[in-house]
Formats: sequence, C-alpha cells, structure tokens
Amino acid sequence: MKVFLISNTENPEKTCAAAALTSYWYKGASETYEKLSKKEIEGILRKVIGYGHISVIEHASFTFSIEGVSRACTHQLVRHRMASYTQQSQRYVEIEHFEPVIPSSIQKNKSALHVFGDFLSNVLDTYKKLIKNNILPEDARFILPNATRTNIVITMNARELLHVFRLRCCNRAQWEIQEMAWKMLKLCKEKAPVIFENAGPLCITEGKCIEGDLACDVWKSLEGKKNKKEIMKKYFEKRFG
Amino acid sequence: MKVFLISNTENPEKTCAAAALTSYWYKGASETYEKLSKKEIEGILRKVIGYGHISVIEHASFTFSIEGVSRACTHQLVRHRMASYTQQSQRYVEIEHFEPVIPSSIQKNKSALHVFGDFLSNVLDTYKKLIKNNILPEDARFILPNATRTNIVITMNARELLHVFRLRCCNRAQWEIQEMAWKMLKLCKEKAPVIFENAGPLCITEGKCIEGDLACDVWKSLEGKKNKKEIMKKYFEKRFG
Amino acid sequence: MKVFLISNTENPEKTCAAAALTSYWYKGASETYEKLSKKEIEGILRKVIGYGHISVIEHASFTFSIEGVSRACTHQLVRHRMASYTQQSQRYVEIEHFEPVIPSSIQKNKSALHVFGDFLSNVLDTYKKLIKNNILPEDARFILPNATRTNIVITMNARELLHVFRLRCCNRAQWEIQEMAWKMLKLCKEKAPVIFENAGPLCITEGKCIEGDLACDVWKSLEGKKNKKEIMKKYFEKRFG
Amino acid sequence: MKVFLISNTENPEKTCAAAALTSYWYKGASETYEKLSKKEIEGILRKVIGYGHISVIEHASFTFSIEGVSRACTHQLVRHRMASYTQQSQRYVEIEHFEPVIPSSIQKNKSALHVFGDFLSNVLDTYKKLIKNNILPEDARFILPNATRTNIVITMNARELLHVFRLRCCNRAQWEIQEMAWKMLKLCKEKAPVIFENAGPLCITEGKCIEGDLACDVWKSLEGKKNKKEIMKKYFEKRFG
Repeated sequence: MKVFLISNTENPEKTCAAAALTSYWYKGASETYEKLSKKEIEGILRKVIGYGHISVIEHASFTFSIEGVSRACTHQLVRHRMASYTQQSQRYVEIEHFEPVIPSSIQKNKSALHVFGDFLSNVLDTYKKLIKNNILPEDARFILPNATRTNIVITMNARELLHVFRLRCCNRAQWEIQEMAWKMLKLCKEKAPVIFENAGPLCITEGKCIEGDLACDVWKSLEGKKNKKEIMKKYFEKRFG
Repeated sequence: MKVFLISNTENPEKTCAAAALTSYWYKGASETYEKLSKKEIEGILRKVIGYGHISVIEHASFTFSIEGVSRACTHQLVRHRMASYTQQSQRYVEIEHFEPVIPSSIQKNKSALHVFGDFLSNVLDTYKKLIKNNILPEDARFILPNATRTNIVITMNARELLHVFRLRCCNRAQWEIQEMAWKMLKLCKEKAPVIFENAGPLCITEGKCIEGDLACDVWKSLEGKKNKKEIMKKYFEKRFG
Repeated sequence: MKVFLISNTENPEKTCAAAALTSYWYKGASETYEKLSKKEIEGILRKVIGYGHISVIEHASFTFSIEGVSRACTHQLVRHRMASYTQQSQRYVEIEHFEPVIPSSIQKNKSALHVFGDFLSNVLDTYKKLIKNNILPEDARFILPNATRTNIVITMNARELLHVFRLRCCNRAQWEIQEMAWKMLKLCKEKAPVIFENAGPLCITEGKCIEGDLACDVWKSLEGKKNKKEIMKKYFEKRFG
Repeated sequence: MKVFLISNTENPEKTCAAAALTSYWYKGASETYEKLSKKEIEGILRKVIGYGHISVIEHASFTFSIEGVSRACTHQLVRHRMASYTQQSQRYVEIEHFEPVIPSSIQKNKSALHVFGDFLSNVLDTYKKLIKNNILPEDARFILPNATRTNIVITMNARELLHVFRLRCCNRAQWEIQEMAWKMLKLCKEKAPVIFENAGPLCITEGKCIEGDLACDVWKSLEGKKNKKEIMKKYFEKRFG
C-alpha cells in the first residue's frame, strides 16, 4: 500500500486561523491573513479547537492518492460521505495484471495461503477468457475478488479527517484501512502539526475506549494501569512509525 | 433482484406542498397542512417544481430494501453521497451460501457462462476452507467476487432520487443499477405521482441526450425522428414495465 | 414560538430496525420488516445504538414547521447542513404586519423594553414608505431587524437530530434555539421513544459537561454533587415540560 | 464589498488532472502527478469535464473572505450546504460601529434614501442603550437590521462553485450575491483557468435561459437575436469587469 499526499490547501493552518479570527473580530481576513505569525496561528488554533469550535478547520483540505489497496478496503472507505473520491474504474479499464492484496493473517498461515493462492491463480485467466468471449469489462469484472488491487484519490477536510482517524486508526478497524489511516495521519502532521497534534483513536487522544467488550486485546490488557494513553501511543508508534 | 419500499415520509406530497407554501405565504404549516386538498397539492407542486424551486421536495424521503444485487452494483450505488445506507456486512457475517449474480451478457453466451460457472463453483468451497484454517470472515472475504449477492437498505429524499433516476435510468448505466433505478422509480410514482411524473433519464423527460458520441444505440437510431421522447418512453416501458 | 411536526417516516423505529437487521443477517427487509414485533424492534435498536452503529437511525426523518421565531434564530439553525429547509421569503413576500420576537431579558427589563419598543415601532412604517417609494421588497427588507418573525420548515434524520439536541438543548445555547430544540425533542419522543430515549444535552445523557469554564451556572452550582444527571433532568423538565 | 481569496488547493488543476488519470489508468497519482505537463493537464480536464465526469474537480477547493456584505446576503449564501463557513458572530462580538449596506435602488432614490437613513441612524444608539441596560449582545442584536455589515469566510470545491456561479451570477440573483459571485469567479479563473473557462450563468455558458417568464429584461430584449451568448457576455463584462 502506498499513501501519497498529492496536494492540500496552501498554508492550511494560517488559512484556518484567519477564518477563526473572522468569527471573533470585526476585521476581515484580507487585513489579518498576511500578518499572522506562526505563534499567533498556533495560539488561535489551540484556543478554538479547545473550545470545540472545530468547524474552522474545515477550511483546510487534503488530497491523497491511496494505491494498491483491496476493493474491500475502498468499499469501506467510500462510505465516509463528507469527502470526494476518484477511483480506478473496473467498468471501463480492462485489467492486464492481477496481483491480489493478501491479508497478513493468510500470509502467515501456510495452509490458508495455499488455498488462497490456488483459487486466485485462475482469476486473470478466467477474466481474459471472458473478454475473449466478447464479454465487456463491465461484466467480466463480476469474477474479480475483493482482493483485487485498486487506486483511489480522496479529498477530505481536516475536520472529517479527525473523525476518520478517530474511527479508523483504532486497533479494531480492519487492518488495511487502519494502516491507511495511520499513513494519512503522518502526512497530515507534516503539513498541519497543530491541527493534527491530538489526532488518532480515542485511546491515545483521550486515554479512553468506548468499545466496551469489543475493545482490542491491547487495551484490555491494560486494565488497572495508569498510563494507558502513553502505552497505547508507544504501541502504535512501534507498528506504524 | 428485489426492490422493496420499506417506508417513506407520510403524505409525501402534502408535506412538500405545505413546505412550499411556507416560502410564499405568511401562514405557517401548522395552519395550512390539514386544509390542503389533493388538487391544491398538485397545483402547488407543479408550480414550484416548474420554477425550479426543487429544494421543497427534499422534505419527502423514501427507504428501499435492495436485495440480491452484486457488490459491483452497490459499490457504484454508495457513491451517491446524499443518502443513508445500511449494507449486509461481509466483515462480520460468515457466508453460508453462494449464488452469484450472473450478467445477462454471460447468461446468453454459452461459452462464457461455462468459464464463469467453472471459476465460481469454487468460491464457497475456498471460503469455507479459509474459515476452517482459522481465517476470520473479514479476511476470508478477500476471495469473494463482485458477483457476490448482497442486500442494502437505502434512504434518499425525492430531490436526490430525481438526480439518481436521471443518471441511472439511462440506457448507458450499468444494467444492474439501471434495473434497480427503474424499479425504485415505479415504487416512487405510486407514493408521489406528481413529484415523479416527469422523472427518468433525460431522453424521456426532456427529449434530449447529452452523451454525444457515447449515446446508446437506441437513441442513435432515432437520428432525425421527431417523436424521440415518445419512442424512448415506449422502449423503457417495454423493458421495465 | 410554535413547533409543529408536519410529518415523519412511517413507522420510524420499525424502519430503522429492519435496516439494522440487514447489516447482520442474510435475509432482506422485504422478508423481515412485516414480522418485527414491538419488542424485537426495541431490542435491535438498543443493541445497535449501544454499539455506536448510529447510522441506522438515519433512515428515519422528521419534518417540522417552526413558526414565529426570529431571523437570528433561523440564521443559526440553517448552519446545520445535514438538513433540508424551506423558509418564508423576505425577498418575494411583502410584509404586512410586524410583531417582533422580544427576548425575555428585554421583556423583563422595563428600561430596555422601552428602548427596544421605541425603535421597532418604526419598522413597519419605514418598510411601507420604502415600498411606496418603489423600492422592491428584496431591498426594503434591508431595514428589517433580526427580531423579525419568520417561519421555516425543516427536515432532519434522527442521527442529525440527536446531534442537534446535544448542542442546542444545552443551557448555553441561545435561548430561542434552545426552546425550539426541546420542543422538537418532545415531538420526536412521541414518535420514536426508543431512538430518542437518551437524547438531550450531555449533562442529562452522560452526566457530564465539556464546556469547562463556559459551563452554565446551573451545572457549576452542582460541583461535588453526585446525582448531577438527575438534577439537570429535573431542571430542564421544569423549564420545558 | 471585498472578496479576497485567502487560499486554495495547491496546483488545483494538476491535482484534479492526476485524480482523473487514476480513474482511467492503472498507474497511481504518485507516479503520474509530477510528470504532468501544463498541456496534458488542460487536455485531461477538458476531456473529463466534457464527458460530464465533473466529480474530479471536487479535489480542488477555494477559500474566500467575503467582507462588508449585508446579513441578507449571507443568509442566502449559507443555504448552500456543500461548503464550510465561518462568520463574524453577532452573538459574542459587541458592535462598535454601524455603517449599513445600502442597496443601489435606495442609493439612487433620494426620497427612499432619506427614509432609510433616518431609520438606521438610530441603530447604533439603540444597540448601545440596550447594552448599557445590561442586555447581552446576543439579545441586543435583535434590533440589528439585515443591512448590517458582516464578514464571512467560505470554502467550496470547484464543482460546487460552478453550481453557485450558475445560480448566482445570473442577472436575476439578488444584486449583492450576484456581485459577490462574479468577484469569486474572477479570482477562480486566475487560479484555475481551464476548470472555470466555461463558468457563469447559463446564458453565457450555454446560450440559453430556463427562467421563462421570469427571465431578466436583458435576456428578454434579445428575443430573436442569434448571438445572445456573446451579447450577455459583454453585458456582464461591462458590469463586473
């Protein structure tokens, strides 16, 4: 999987800070924007985010290219409706290669990997036979499995990204979308360190978990410990860098 | 494929008409709603829709159960973001049966059908072997093809439905989503005949097509004819009833 | 202020429960919907809402007529973007009467009420003079104050309503939108008692407040008390019935 | 009125072109983005926009500061829900000055201007008296008229902007929002000339008008003329530069 930041709102934090000022001051952004210092920007953002005036960070958006993930992953991803998507078409683009996404649970399990590999070794062959029989790609794709690789471009604003990170960086999220979310978060932090300084799943941002019985094993093993937040942080740092 | 209307806004047209009145009159809907006659409702709706004040029909929404369609179909469907979806989970629900959706282009093509059937005859077996090897459904599903049947519940308001019908009732839409759209439209017309009286693809609502070179063969064959609209209407009536 | 429920999704809770079942079962809603008992519906809804699968309640929507509120109130209201609105037009409808919304802080303050009344006694007169001078309503309305009464029809789904109630039933919300939110909640509870059983501001649903220094005086006065949740509940019941 | 472009997606057209490529090619944007030439970008964008694959331009967004417009204008503006807004608060910010927005129809009409000025000369005085009587700004603002100046920051993606320009650049749009829309369009064209090359009201983009009897006088006067599109273009150029 590759996660590439194509573009983003220029000066994302300065833009959001100028918007925030508009709310509390009679001066417009045409007067204030250029003069905002790095320190002022940080102060304004921390203050408004602290007060829960989170809508100001909607003014910054980020465009990612997510490459080589499964269709299972993108079917989940596109359910977030506050976003824009452009995905590689299976309807119009005839596939030439087939190299499936293999879940690590299968990679680590010799017997399962054998079963998986055996079945999928016929995918491309079957697809090509259908095409040869004059079946259009839009119908031939019916045999393509969830494991089929796809690319998708996605644009989201910072507020929605925080929401996605809360849900998808969680250890209980599907492994592929989890990895994707952590890679996106890392790229966001480089561009907007203040906005994303407290981003991630609840366990590392608020030191709590609302999953109850469904909490991940890591969290469950921390029962009674005091520094849960720090331990979870280290756990994720180790996994996703 | 089965399309079932689960529920909808009670008195959808009366509701929208009362909303429209609010816009143009000083009286509130608590006074006007009960008194609205069928004839007045029709008059108000035709007038506001005619003026393009289409937002009033957002007050009526419709909830459908779409059953036995392919995952290829729902992957397209869920890209409409102005809607609410609940879909059968492949992540949590272990599949027990496998009966694929077969495109008619494949059904009609003996040789292709053979290739298709051969490949898919192993899906359930492979899936079960993975489960037996302790692979969780969320990873075993990676081998499931686009042809896998799924159910999805969808809620949309009338404005968005008109938009979906414009795109998806078109002869160039994927065959499965096209059939789904026509079935939804039929159910909508029973509940809200005035709102949906002019619904469908552009060719039957406005007698034109904006697809250019990509227009369907039926439309292209009408070059020079005068009553294109009527011919297209009959063509679709024949296909979808 | 009058809050009138014009319409809503028929059988809102049964509809959402059938949608929830679709997610976890291979059977479609066309099979399950009719058979769902009141008890099953309650069980399903409490379970999925408890797990945070809150999206299923998007399938139920509610349409209200809000009448006789100020333009200040509706300017706030329409900022909720997951909703549909139809508002009395000041651009096309010439006003005939003018009876302002008077904040209770002004009603209770003789001196302020005098100032307020004095100024606003000229609104209608001024407006009519502008119209007489051939100024169109769309420009004459420039002199109309925030206190001008308006009617608005609004449709929201249950998920968004829960969000609105969390924000707007709070004691720190503007008094007018607060009253409106409580009236809407009361009407929702009659139609969907399970979905809305735990609706309201955080203090009565979770027994906590995230406003910090900005918390309301009532909450602040409860410092150290154990049954904050119950006290807040009684406080709001007394105010809004 | 001042319209200031605070920020936008970096390389807006290159970003959208890379997204479009993803749809039609197996290569991801991480490979294609850097290599895209200006000419290729133009070619790709014109092609996909021509085919109506307009969703790709959602990946470019633009953030404007709109300053010194009336509350009447922003009440209309915020009804566009596919956008993010941050507006100067009348609830928390006590006003110090009052300089109303005056519609040109009133500016040009001596008698109306007199009526208008007379009435509004008391606004600030009344407001201050209310504050002095211990009325909070959130209630004192009830006397503020629609003519009150406000600032608002707005972020929209290019697809929604095209929609807004279609509606609001129209000669029948309210004069203030019309001027605002034209100023925004001018700024957009500087940053993304290909995406916005065909932006504006229907009369100049498609040479037609769907307003029927409600069409503007300029359009009505062109009855029977051939080059309506060109005449409308010149008309708007003269007015908005």
